[in-house]
Amino acid sequence: MSVLVVGSVAFDDVTSPSGSVKNILGGAATYFSLAASYFTQVRVVAVVGEDFGPAEQRVFQDHGIDTRGIERAKGKTFRWGGSYTDNLNEAKSDFTELNVFESFHPQIPSAYDDTEFLFLANIQPALQTNVRRHMNGVRLTGCDTMNYWIKGTPKELAETLKLVDILLINDTETRMLAGETNLLRAANKVLAIGPKALVIKHGEYGATIFFREGAFGIGHHPFRAPALPIEEVRDPTGAGDSFAGGFMGYLASQKQLNRETLKRALFYGSVMGSFAVERFGTERLQSLTREEIDARFGVFRELTHLE
Amino acid sequence: MSVLVVGSVAFDDVTSPSGSVKNILGGAATYFSLAASYFTQVRVVAVVGEDFGPAEQRVFQDHGIDTRGIERAKGKTFRWGGSYTDNLNEAKSDFTELNVFESFHPQIPSAYDDTEFLFLANIQPALQTNVRRHMNGVRLTGCDTMNYWIKGTPKELAETLKLVDILLINDTETRMLAGETNLLRAANKVLAIGPKALVIKHGEYGATIFFREGAFGIGHHPFRAPALPIEEVRDPTGAGDSFAGGFMGYLASQKQLNRETLKRALFYGSVMGSFAVERFGTERLQSLTREEIDARFGVFRELTHLE
Repeated sequence: MSVLVVGSVAFDDVTSPSGSVKNILGGAATYFSLAASYFTQVRVVAVVGEDFGPAEQRVFQDHGIDTRGIERAKGKTFRWGGSYTDNLNEAKSDFTELNVFESFHPQIPSAYDDTEFLFLANIQPALQTNVRRHMNGVRLTGCDTMNYWIKGTPKELAETLKLVDILLINDTETRMLAGETNLLRAANKVLAIGPKALVIKHGEYGATIFFREGAFGIGHHPFRAPALPIEEVRDPTGAGDSFAGGFMGYLASQKQLNRETLKRALFYGSVMGSFAVERFGTERLQSLTREEIDARFGVFRELTHLE
Repeated sequence: MSVLVVGSVAFDDVTSPSGSVKNILGGAATYFSLAASYFTQVRVVAVVGEDFGPAEQRVFQDHGIDTRGIERAKGKTFRWGGSYTDNLNEAKSDFTELNVFESFHPQIPSAYDDTEFLFLANIQPALQTNVRRHMNGVRLTGCDTMNYWIKGTPKELAETLKLVDILLINDTETRMLAGETNLLRAANKVLAIGPKALVIKHGEYGATIFFREGAFGIGHHPFRAPALPIEEVRDPTGAGDSFAGGFMGYLASQKQLNRETLKRALFYGSVMGSFAVERFGTERLQSLTREEIDARFGVFRELTHLE
């Protein structure tokens, strides 16, 4: 089966306690695609500028990612610069140049119409809604968003959330979206807006999935996947998108969509996020093998497994 | 078997978003004792003032806790006032009146000499060292500390840590003690100081145990127990001490001390911490049953268990 991601492709400058890099390939759609490519066929809808060359194209092609949906526009690709100090959970944005991304209007190639899994990476909610409506045959839609849209376009975002199955956001975004500090109550409020399940990403502490009563099976107990304590977190950029790629990619590779596959998907998301941060940019995601991924899945399982 | 805790008994004033209480029974030794009492025989060494009356005495007695080591001194019991706002992980201290606790010199009754498990709650490291040296026949010693001692008496604390088996502290304390922000590297630095294992308490995200190579069995993979997302956290005071009580109490009830019992102990610690925060003070810990505890253990297990 296949998964389509709609989101940003970017060039990033990143500084962390481990060093500094410039002009490296980034963007939510890039991290997502690479992470998901180890599980299923991936398709991308994004926009890039004239500075997106054969080297960048090859990164996608080497992983069998279908890039027919990457539009080439006049001008420069989206650029972002960020720094991490000791608190690796929070980036300080040094600059954001939207460039061609400013007027991004996702166009879905007709060859993508049979896509079964859709992931709406963090873009303007009205655009997410348009894409979701266009792709009305999908089996499952995942969605990301951020503080900027939660505060700035709450109505548009609420419309989007009615049309998605699983929302993947972090603790702070969940609390802000719900207007509620208690995480369990906040999760229930978010589920009442629309999605059948909510994945809250806790950074170094893993992630929890909350289910709307009756969604994907019986019961409504949440489930938590841990994250591995990592010796050197070089670059946290893209960890959430890599998580989403592992999560959605694994789901797209499964026949059944039930509690058990969602639990395993949560573990695979956590695994892909943990690989992503070990190197700057997408370096680690470019060079993985499925064996390495499954070995870490085993370590994560052991990390919380009682006999 | 039995566990001895040496630490504070106090009266607390607590304000949280859920309300406000005054003069309630608190203190690390109190939370620890009550939590551990569901697993094993508990003994306490602490000091109280003339305001510690029959009602407070009864709380311990109702749980079969041996209070012969609670010294009654002239003056008032230790008093602490704290407030929690939206961030329930951090208390703002409103006042601290050490009172009789200021000149606390733990005296171990000879009836306690055969104690097999010892927990040194958060007191001055030099006092912890004295107690540990006195109790040189114990099978296992657990230990807590805090920022105040890490900064103020680092040499004394390093001495204490050489004599304890398991240190139980939180993320911030671990980073401060190691002088290292990466949690895995910080954990390894702490283990190099002395303890065989380090339990890092992550608040609402559970806890992780790190092992010194070869301690308590082969391998050195860490292990993580989750914490349940809780609908209403009324009062986080004592959560860490309740965690320690569940952890040490469970260990003291086991014949074997190996990786598997330590993993289960970590879960029981997390369970007892999660109960403690549901009500103000020790209210919830006073009224539990072992069946409720084991039911929650089962929920925690399911929370991270893959088929």
